[in-house]
Amino acid sequence: MITILHGNLIHAPSFGTLETIPNGYLVLEDGIVQGIYPTLPEQFAACPVTDYGGGLIMPSFADLHLHAPQYPMLGMGMDLPLLDWLDTYTFRTEARFEDTDYARRVYRQLAEDLITSGTTRVAMFSSRHTDATLILMEELEKAGVTGYVGKVNMDRSAGLSQEKTEESISETLRWLENCHFDLVKPILTPRFTPSCTNELMAALGKLAAERDLPVQSHLSENAGEIALVGQLHPDCPQYWESYEKYGLWKDRTLMAHCVHSDSREQAAMAKAGVWAVHCAASNVNLCSGTAPVRELVEHGVHVALGSDIAGGDQLAMNKVIVMSIRASKIKQIETGAPFLTVPEAYYLGSTAGHTYFGGGAGFQSGHKLHAIVIDDSSLPEPTRELTLDERFERAIYLMDKRHIQAVYSEGVRRV
Amino acid sequence: MITILHGNLIHAPSFGTLETIPNGYLVLEDGIVQGIYPTLPEQFAACPVTDYGGGLIMPSFADLHLHAPQYPMLGMGMDLPLLDWLDTYTFRTEARFEDTDYARRVYRQLAEDLITSGTTRVAMFSSRHTDATLILMEELEKAGVTGYVGKVNMDRSAGLSQEKTEESISETLRWLENCHFDLVKPILTPRFTPSCTNELMAALGKLAAERDLPVQSHLSENAGEIALVGQLHPDCPQYWESYEKYGLWKDRTLMAHCVHSDSREQAAMAKAGVWAVHCAASNVNLCSGTAPVRELVEHGVHVALGSDIAGGDQLAMNKVIVMSIRASKIKQIETGAPFLTVPEAYYLGSTAGHTYFGGGAGFQSGHKLHAIVIDDSSLPEPTRELTLDERFERAIYLMDKRHIQAVYSEGVRRV
Repeated sequence: MITILHGNLIHAPSFGTLETIPNGYLVLEDGIVQGIYPTLPEQFAACPVTDYGGGLIMPSFADLHLHAPQYPMLGMGMDLPLLDWLDTYTFRTEARFEDTDYARRVYRQLAEDLITSGTTRVAMFSSRHTDATLILMEELEKAGVTGYVGKVNMDRSAGLSQEKTEESISETLRWLENCHFDLVKPILTPRFTPSCTNELMAALGKLAAERDLPVQSHLSENAGEIALVGQLHPDCPQYWESYEKYGLWKDRTLMAHCVHSDSREQAAMAKAGVWAVHCAASNVNLCSGTAPVRELVEHGVHVALGSDIAGGDQLAMNKVIVMSIRASKIKQIETGAPFLTVPEAYYLGSTAGHTYFGGGAGFQSGHKLHAIVIDDSSLPEPTRELTLDERFERAIYLMDKRHIQAVYSEGVRRV
Repeated sequence: MITILHGNLIHAPSFGTLETIPNGYLVLEDGIVQGIYPTLPEQFAACPVTDYGGGLIMPSFADLHLHAPQYPMLGMGMDLPLLDWLDTYTFRTEARFEDTDYARRVYRQLAEDLITSGTTRVAMFSSRHTDATLILMEELEKAGVTGYVGKVNMDRSAGLSQEKTEESISETLRWLENCHFDLVKPILTPRFTPSCTNELMAALGKLAAERDLPVQSHLSENAGEIALVGQLHPDCPQYWESYEKYGLWKDRTLMAHCVHSDSREQAAMAKAGVWAVHCAASNVNLCSGTAPVRELVEHGVHVALGSDIAGGDQLAMNKVIVMSIRASKIKQIETGAPFLTVPEAYYLGSTAGHTYFGGGAGFQSGHKLHAIVIDDSSLPEPTRELTLDERFERAIYLMDKRHIQAVYSEGVRRV
């Protein structure tokens, strides 16, 4: 079945490219992009059109690093040092997800918040709880948020949230057996090297290889953490090698942060096909620093963006995009590396993440539509008619969910 | 007439102090704060109570630096270098305010946006246009936004927006003659040293002294600007001395930015009673740097916050407060100076600004009420009951105007 969307089409098919089609037509066949056109081809003249008038139709957002059970602590504890923040808020909050009723309520609210904010693909950390993780996956699927979710593994230095090693492994197996979702798939999630014993890391690496499962974790977020990994793994010259040793450093492994990744670590990422997930708000909130995003891109590392709630305080990915621009401007002041332009940062927070999951580059034909429609008519009255490039930039900076008129995920309108 | 507000009272009467009164009572007499109480004193038992239940009642925000005619270009041109940004957007946009009908529409929208965002006091730049400036003042007054507005003076290097010297002076006099507003008063506004001839600076300094008018301008925003001032005023060892030379550097002069103010310039500010207005978002957006806010405070300089739209992209002052915290965290990484805590930054964005205009410290008795009431019940469900300190922090980070239930300005409810 053919359906057609009419409006101003804007997409970023590659890093640094922004293409606009004023008053264009996006043709879908069973939710799959068939093509984008400045005028409607004759053959589709009789097909139904959803007319978004002057609205902006753009690929939706993809959030490749966030902690679902930290949603209840969003915007709190931001004045605390990292370890106090973990003890006072993070571990206690995550422990609460033992309660499946509570998990259901919070995860339903999170899923709703994500889809109405235009985020249609995620790579997400759950807590250690198998049942709550399955509930999270179910709620995301119901809301139309697709991607990967991981039950967290942590059998060391994780306070209230800690597991025993055997329990961590057996619960991971139980979780995998119960992952029967169409749009939300499992990803192995050792929290990070300091919170996993060697035995657990080895078991997860084996599982990743045997079942061809993707992996997500954290890398080189701050100096204390890097030093600790050095103590725990004296045989590893660098942090990333603690993952490589156990088979967790592989194609499509997602590594959040990479704030302090030097050129050797970056080269190892590029070589293995490991992705860096840049979380600018979190890195500033926790005084971790500003990640070398431009350098990572130039080294051939795949980069995507993450909200990293609740180290990050903003779930809306347009705000995350803006924060990544701001962080890159700080980086430019420090090092001279050119800042991320709005189209570049939007690419990282949208198309880059979509392609991680096999999605299309912008509105590439042959891929299920993931898109948002923005009504910017309530933004301040400009002095003259704006170009689509200007309206795009302004929307990224100023919009919130009130301006999101429609959201399409996997070819289906969900908002 | 006595009226009473009931709810959770939160205020920051001094830098770094946060006081909370759960389920408290704020007693007003003709809009003037009479006192705050944990339980209602017997004498007021018969007075009418406005019950905000579980809401947070806090002093409203004060925005001490923003450019009203740049509101239409909010969130645009952020990828451009400063000079291109000025030429492509700023001067062209400001020039449009020759049209008084356009000015009326935009300034009405701005005034509405400010008051519904909880900003009740401002120190604002208009454009060079006398009539549009009077319209701006009228629209602010109607909406309940109080404070100072300045017709901008610029007779040099200001592109489309430039005035002739005599015209700049005569129009300033015409503007002052027509400022008949109760709550919105004039402030002299030489744009900044590079855009004012010596003759104009001297005339404005004379006017400031003769009529005891306050002054606002820009100081030490970026390196190129500082170098230019050095060339224009070779007799001035530092930027600030170009203002001092013409009588513009005086008690209560507002100086936006001060990103590169060193200890000598800071000492000159403290000595003269000049205020620094910190504009974190703008300073990052334009790659200017991060201002030494902690150092300014420790040098005894009065500091307040400004949204600096449209160099800044956020009008809502809670977002400006959060950006000032983020900028201070970057500064901490660079220099080790402790970052601004949430209560400290809130003080700068609220009470500090109010006291500039003679307002009270927090809910100080004897001052007209400037307050907002926040309904945070739609924020994510927490894992346990939150303290008022936690709810305060979360509101500053997460709220937008949808959470602002009421706004009081000059003792009157305006939202």
